[in-house]
Amino acid sequence: MARPREFNKDDALYKTMLIFWRKGYDGTSIPDLLEAAGISRSSLYETFTDKQTLFIEAMKIYRNFVGSNSIQIILDYLADPVRKNEPAMDIIRKYFNGRIDMALDRRYPGGCFITNTATSLETADEKVRSAVVGYIRKTEDTFRDILNRCRDNGEITRDSDINALTAYLIAIANGINVLSRTGKDRSSLDNIVKTALKNISI
Amino acid sequence: MARPREFNKDDALYKTMLIFWRKGYDGTSIPDLLEAAGISRSSLYETFTDKQTLFIEAMKIYRNFVGSNSIQIILDYLADPVRKNEPAMDIIRKYFNGRIDMALDRRYPGGCFITNTATSLETADEKVRSAVVGYIRKTEDTFRDILNRCRDNGEITRDSDINALTAYLIAIANGINVLSRTGKDRSSLDNIVKTALKNISI
Repeated sequence: MARPREFNKDDALYKTMLIFWRKGYDGTSIPDLLEAAGISRSSLYETFTDKQTLFIEAMKIYRNFVGSNSIQIILDYLADPVRKNEPAMDIIRKYFNGRIDMALDRRYPGGCFITNTATSLETADEKVRSAVVGYIRKTEDTFRDILNRCRDNGEITRDSDINALTAYLIAIANGINVLSRTGKDRSSLDNIVKTALKNISI
Repeated sequence: MARPREFNKDDALYKTMLIFWRKGYDGTSIPDLLEAAGISRSSLYETFTDKQTLFIEAMKIYRNFVGSNSIQIILDYLADPVRKNEPAMDIIRKYFNGRIDMALDRRYPGGCFITNTATSLETADEKVRSAVVGYIRKTEDTFRDILNRCRDNGEITRDSDINALTAYLIAIANGINVLSRTGKDRSSLDNIVKTALKNISI
C-alpha cells in the first residue's frame, strides 16, 4: 500500500483558511479545499475528520492570525494594569486600523473571514453556525470591556449605553469589511472610523 | 422541432434574484439558476444572453423591490417640494427601518442582495463588478442629498462633513445587513440605527 504523501498540517490549514475566507463556508467545495491545501481526499478526512471540523480549525488559525494585529491589541491592553491610564479610545482606534490594514492587504482575499462567511452562511450545520456566531460574540465581549474602560476613564459619557455602543462598533467593523471589497480606498475607510469614534467620544 | 416551454420572464428573474441573493454571484452556478427559475438552459441563454446579463437584470429587479420600502422613501421625499420642512432625519430612520424589515424577513434569503454579493465577489468580470459598485455609488449619492437636506434644515451641524457622514451611514447599513445574518434580533439592529443617528444629530 502506498504511504500517504506527507504534508504540513499548519500549512494546509493556513491555505484552507484562505480559501474559506475567499469563498465562504458553503461556497467552498471539497475539491476547492483539496486543491488549495494540496492534499489528497483521504489525508483531508484522516487529518481533519470532515468539512465542518476543518472549517472550525481554519477559523482558529484566522483568530490567531487576525488577533496579532487587531483584537489582541485590545486584549493586551485590558490585561495590563500598567496601561490602565492609557486612553482606551486610542486602543479602539488601533484595532480598527489593524482591521483596515488586513481588509485591504492584497496578499489576503479581502475584507474579513468572518464577515464574508456570515453573509453567505446557508448551512444548517449547527457546529459551523455556532462557531461563527460564537466568534462574533467573543468580539462583542471584548468591545464591551474596552467600552467600560472608556467610561471609567471619562472618555465617553457616564450614562453611555455600553451594549448599544458595542453593537454600534461591531456594525461599523462589519460595514468597513464589506466596503473594503467594493473598491473603497484607505482614506474613506479611515474616515468612517474617525466619524464613528468622534461621535461617541466626549 | 419542439417549441420551447413557455415561461414568465419576470417570474424567472425574481427567482434568479433570490438565488443570487442567497449564494452571491460567484457562488451561483448555471444549474442553480436553471433549477431556481425552472427554465431550460436554452431558454436561459436565449432570453438572458449569459450569467452576467442575467445578474444585472436580477439586480434591477432587486432595486425595484427594495426601492419600494427603503431607498425610494428617500427619493420620494427629496423629489417632493411640499415635504421640504419634514425632518430629513426621520426619513433616514424610515430607510433603515425598511432595510431591517427586509434583512430579517424570512421570506427572503436574509441580509441584503448587494452586501451578500459584495462580500463574495471574486469574478474578474468588469460588467458585474461595476454594476455592484455602481449600485452602492447610487445609494451614496442619495445619502449625500438627504444629508445635505439635514444640514440645510439644521438637523446636523452646519460644518458637518457630508462625504464622511455618507460613508459612515453606508457602513452602518452594510454592518446591519451582515449582523442580521448572525442571529441579531430586531431590537439590537434598531439600537444600532438609534445610536448611529443620535450621534450625528444636533
